[in-house]
Amino acid sequence: MSDRPCIHVVLAAGEGTRMRSKLPKVMHAIAGEPMLGHVLAALGSSGGGTDCAVVVGPGMEQVARFAVAQRPDASVHVQSERLGTAHAVLSARGAISPDRDVIVLYGDTPLVQPETLDSLRGAIGDGADLAVLAFEAANPAGYGRLIVEGDRLLAIREDRDASPEEKEISLCNSGVIAFRSGLAIDLLDAIGNDNAKGEYYLTDAVEIAVARGLSAVAVKCPEAEVQGVNTRAQLAAAEAALQARLRRRAMDGGATLVAPETVFLSSDTVLGRDVVVEPNVFFGPGVTIGDDVAIRAFSHIEGATISDGATVGPYARLRPGAGIGEGARIGNFVEVKAAAVEAGAKVNHLSYIGDARVGAGANIGAGTITCNYDGTAKHHTDIGAGAFIGSNSALVAPVRIGDRAYVGSGSVITSDVAADALAIARARQVDVPDWTPRRVPRRKPD
Amino acid sequence: MSDRPCIHVVLAAGEGTRMRSKLPKVMHAIAGEPMLGHVLAALGSSGGGTDCAVVVGPGMEQVARFAVAQRPDASVHVQSERLGTAHAVLSARGAISPDRDVIVLYGDTPLVQPETLDSLRGAIGDGADLAVLAFEAANPAGYGRLIVEGDRLLAIREDRDASPEEKEISLCNSGVIAFRSGLAIDLLDAIGNDNAKGEYYLTDAVEIAVARGLSAVAVKCPEAEVQGVNTRAQLAAAEAALQARLRRRAMDGGATLVAPETVFLSSDTVLGRDVVVEPNVFFGPGVTIGDDVAIRAFSHIEGATISDGATVGPYARLRPGAGIGEGARIGNFVEVKAAAVEAGAKVNHLSYIGDARVGAGANIGAGTITCNYDGTAKHHTDIGAGAFIGSNSALVAPVRIGDRAYVGSGSVITSDVAADALAIARARQVDVPDWTPRRVPRRKPD
Amino acid sequence: MSDRPCIHVVLAAGEGTRMRSKLPKVMHAIAGEPMLGHVLAALGSSGGGTDCAVVVGPGMEQVARFAVAQRPDASVHVQSERLGTAHAVLSARGAISPDRDVIVLYGDTPLVQPETLDSLRGAIGDGADLAVLAFEAANPAGYGRLIVEGDRLLAIREDRDASPEEKEISLCNSGVIAFRSGLAIDLLDAIGNDNAKGEYYLTDAVEIAVARGLSAVAVKCPEAEVQGVNTRAQLAAAEAALQARLRRRAMDGGATLVAPETVFLSSDTVLGRDVVVEPNVFFGPGVTIGDDVAIRAFSHIEGATISDGATVGPYARLRPGAGIGEGARIGNFVEVKAAAVEAGAKVNHLSYIGDARVGAGANIGAGTITCNYDGTAKHHTDIGAGAFIGSNSALVAPVRIGDRAYVGSGSVITSDVAADALAIARARQVDVPDWTPRRVPRRKPD
Repeated sequence: MSDRPCIHVVLAAGEGTRMRSKLPKVMHAIAGEPMLGHVLAALGSSGGGTDCAVVVGPGMEQVARFAVAQRPDASVHVQSERLGTAHAVLSARGAISPDRDVIVLYGDTPLVQPETLDSLRGAIGDGADLAVLAFEAANPAGYGRLIVEGDRLLAIREDRDASPEEKEISLCNSGVIAFRSGLAIDLLDAIGNDNAKGEYYLTDAVEIAVARGLSAVAVKCPEAEVQGVNTRAQLAAAEAALQARLRRRAMDGGATLVAPETVFLSSDTVLGRDVVVEPNVFFGPGVTIGDDVAIRAFSHIEGATISDGATVGPYARLRPGAGIGEGARIGNFVEVKAAAVEAGAKVNHLSYIGDARVGAGANIGAGTITCNYDGTAKHHTDIGAGAFIGSNSALVAPVRIGDRAYVGSGSVITSDVAADALAIARARQVDVPDWTPRRVPRRKPD
Repeated sequence: MSDRPCIHVVLAAGEGTRMRSKLPKVMHAIAGEPMLGHVLAALGSSGGGTDCAVVVGPGMEQVARFAVAQRPDASVHVQSERLGTAHAVLSARGAISPDRDVIVLYGDTPLVQPETLDSLRGAIGDGADLAVLAFEAANPAGYGRLIVEGDRLLAIREDRDASPEEKEISLCNSGVIAFRSGLAIDLLDAIGNDNAKGEYYLTDAVEIAVARGLSAVAVKCPEAEVQGVNTRAQLAAAEAALQARLRRRAMDGGATLVAPETVFLSSDTVLGRDVVVEPNVFFGPGVTIGDDVAIRAFSHIEGATISDGATVGPYARLRPGAGIGEGARIGNFVEVKAAAVEAGAKVNHLSYIGDARVGAGANIGAGTITCNYDGTAKHHTDIGAGAFIGSNSALVAPVRIGDRAYVGSGSVITSDVAADALAIARARQVDVPDWTPRRVPRRKPD
Repeated sequence: MSDRPCIHVVLAAGEGTRMRSKLPKVMHAIAGEPMLGHVLAALGSSGGGTDCAVVVGPGMEQVARFAVAQRPDASVHVQSERLGTAHAVLSARGAISPDRDVIVLYGDTPLVQPETLDSLRGAIGDGADLAVLAFEAANPAGYGRLIVEGDRLLAIREDRDASPEEKEISLCNSGVIAFRSGLAIDLLDAIGNDNAKGEYYLTDAVEIAVARGLSAVAVKCPEAEVQGVNTRAQLAAAEAALQARLRRRAMDGGATLVAPETVFLSSDTVLGRDVVVEPNVFFGPGVTIGDDVAIRAFSHIEGATISDGATVGPYARLRPGAGIGEGARIGNFVEVKAAAVEAGAKVNHLSYIGDARVGAGANIGAGTITCNYDGTAKHHTDIGAGAFIGSNSALVAPVRIGDRAYVGSGSVITSDVAADALAIARARQVDVPDWTPRRVPRRKPD
């Protein structure tokens, strides 16, 4: 890799008309995160070594805000007119100092990997003046073909200009390009717009460089990394490619995904050793799971931490702030939000636990609801270790249930319950004999 | 396209033995609708231009009823014996007037597209006497091969009769055939049954027509459109092909399907612009969704309307008659049936809202149940704008909760609550100190 | 097939380092059952005809226990050192009597079919001394190639030793091998360890046998049957292959799987005729379903029996001991455990029915909970035929609700209810007019 510092110019000005969306194209998400975020994450750690300039279109404040939130070191530049990729890079002219290598990337090409960018910098570091990221295309039609001699890149031929022999070439241009320090501005300024659309094309830098006797090389990467996204179908394809990568990583790390194609992961999902994930599980961002955890089918987990040996699901929904203790169990149709369910506690059926602590070993009966919202504010429920909450109880927060306390089924608990105490809040049962036959109209038992 | 009116003869008499079903084959569903329904829908609007005759087997009243319900203009004809496809068409002899073009279709080939039928009519309109719908088969073995010269169809060679050279032909017979007006009956009557099975084969019409000097042409369509269904596995394949088509249409229209292969659509599903559908969502018939709606994972939606900006799921079940207002939120483990949830209202957790109105901005607490059924009849619950229903409440219908009224958690509400009033119906809490240690046997807290 | 008795030696000593697991490799599950269990099940019925020896590694008591639990006739042998496959087989030397054919199988190759083992025994019975199970590899690289003349197996060439011509051979060694009675021990004892790893390779038996003038044959099977599992990704691939097989079997039997790729079956799942399974359904072990049953989307079913004409789901969870009667309905967000829901009964919404009987035609309202656990023991709830349980009721077990009895909504029932009686247990409603405007801070209805 080059020892020189590097500036990454990320082109993010595309409107994405074919997405048919109000959202700027690079803000469309894969694995729950905008495409631009994936590109920015691939640039590696900021600091002396790398730097980042993002080029947005007019009025794309949302993109600019996102870029800076993700990388506070990023500079944002507005491309005021859409005059082609070279013009877009030059919109960031002020960020391109002559002592830095330059790599041009695309906000709508979200799957490029850090190792690939390292290879590109390596090629520049090894003496090339210019390096183009290339891929062997399964179907090259439409792509610019790379005319090479060994590693040396001689020219890039656009599909429409390619001879029949050149059309047979499968090595294609990804659009990602790296310039040795001091060259980028000069080469880009030399690019003209004498073409059908009157645009300035970044690709033309290769021809100009070669004509000047500079050395250009092609650096290969898998096709999947450089697939761009222009439509919702391509967005779905990028999502699928990323999910395949994340699933493989999870399995390689020692997790069983019973049906990997039905498990949706985030880039930051951490699964421990011998975690077993049943089919149809969705992991949003911010999930960390310990060892020997079972995640059963149809679970939906975001922003949650699950400790060793816990069992979750089926049909468990863990929302941000859920912390599930060692060996604890969260069962079906249970929602947990901003709550610690401590070691060995059980919330097995049809419950809502929000803004709460469930102490170690406590047992929460079916249909229990923590009534955390009173219409104006949220309040906390604290359930002590070893407490037993009878089924179909409502715990009206703020309320504390002491250690080992026992709440009778069907109770609405509004006052604190002392440790070891029994609390019950239910009406007396009244029976009316022979009621059904006298009811009109008589209901048929069928 | 031909200007002449056209009669479509849809063969639907097959028993479908290989389906191993009590249901007639054409009544097996894809995308929630019987295969026959898809074929009838492809015929286009009824009226002067098109007409429809459905041929059923003896005793297939269910098929006949379905056909007429779908297309009140359809005539139904019973093929009393199973003597081949030509015989089946002639069972509808009475419906085939000599001034109409005739197209023969199949109730178990559900994916044929209106545009394809238009092409077929166009070929007849352009002067051909007979047009056969053909496809390039990925694996032609078993299909009849089309012997053509340019567009001209010379003969159809059955697989068993084909020479080695003819077996190399990949252009195959779909079975769908169109006759210029006045020709069908004459040609069909000329078909014999001098073959192994003693059946009258529609395909033989081509040979007879060519022998008479009539002109026959082949019209191509994608193989997927003319795949017939004889087994449950083929039914699943047809479902998959249709779903792929519907998903593509949804994405082209501006919806994001995070994992399209996990989203199941109906033919009439309408998704607005910038709708985001998370993985694993099922849309039954009759769903219309506005713009900027989020449908989260594991949702199941049928017969529902969802307005702009609403959020639904995960694990939301919307049943027929659910209407979700602008910006409203339906959360996890919530069922809504025959109920309007008005703008900005929230039903976030573990609730059943049936036969009800939830006014604008109302907040329905976790575990709320509208008790709409008393064992004999269903009753209505009306919740006013801005009302707050505390968690784990039961609203015993018929009942009205006024605007901005407040129902305390855990209440069973049996009488109307006035606007701005507080209603509460819960038992007093009784505590028994030091109860747990005295309990025998003592429960261990873990 | 050979008339001689046969001993199957199943090698199960592998640690499976690449699984990155604490669990021995053969205990990793597909379709909910350890891989070793699938292999043992494929051996066919025990008794005079077949017998089974399982070779485990040191300290693999868990594997030994599982093997014996599955096949009480199995002998278990410990391979004390890992010195290769031939050495592993000889660890079971004591079980290999000279009057029995011997087949060597692998605990991490779980998809081999009984019919394939029959073919292998047949080859031995037809006079061959040794038979190797072979497959045509889609990508033979890495596999040992079979050098054959007709059926006769001349040699097995390891990939690293193969000439360029031999590398073109696609017929590969599965590792499964059968010996005619009396030959195995002698041949295995003759195998040396003069190779890079110093291990004794079972495959070498072929070369030794051929050198001695014994006859060896290759028996072919599909590649999918003999795919071994060394990584979690390969485990997922084996699961997918098994699921494809189970889904195909279910469809061939007359069930509709709307989206087969989303339905997960167990080896023992029984689906009746005209069962329709919507997308995303998980069947654990022990499920039997009658005819004309609808299993709706997102259902999770284990250890349950469902009778003809019942409807289950969406979002129904049936746990072990659930028995659903004819025409009964289990709806959304409903959990049933160890409970009989008799003919025509309905549990449609958000309920937990555990350790209970729901009589024929009974109607269980939304949000009903059987409170079966008191913190120390489980108790039973008995609901009579035609009973009506109002919504949001809690039935505190042990309790009996008589036939045709009526429980008012929101009741907590603690005492038995007589047949035909009405029981109600709810607090009186208290209303406070004009409460909301006086509340501070006033909640905005937004």
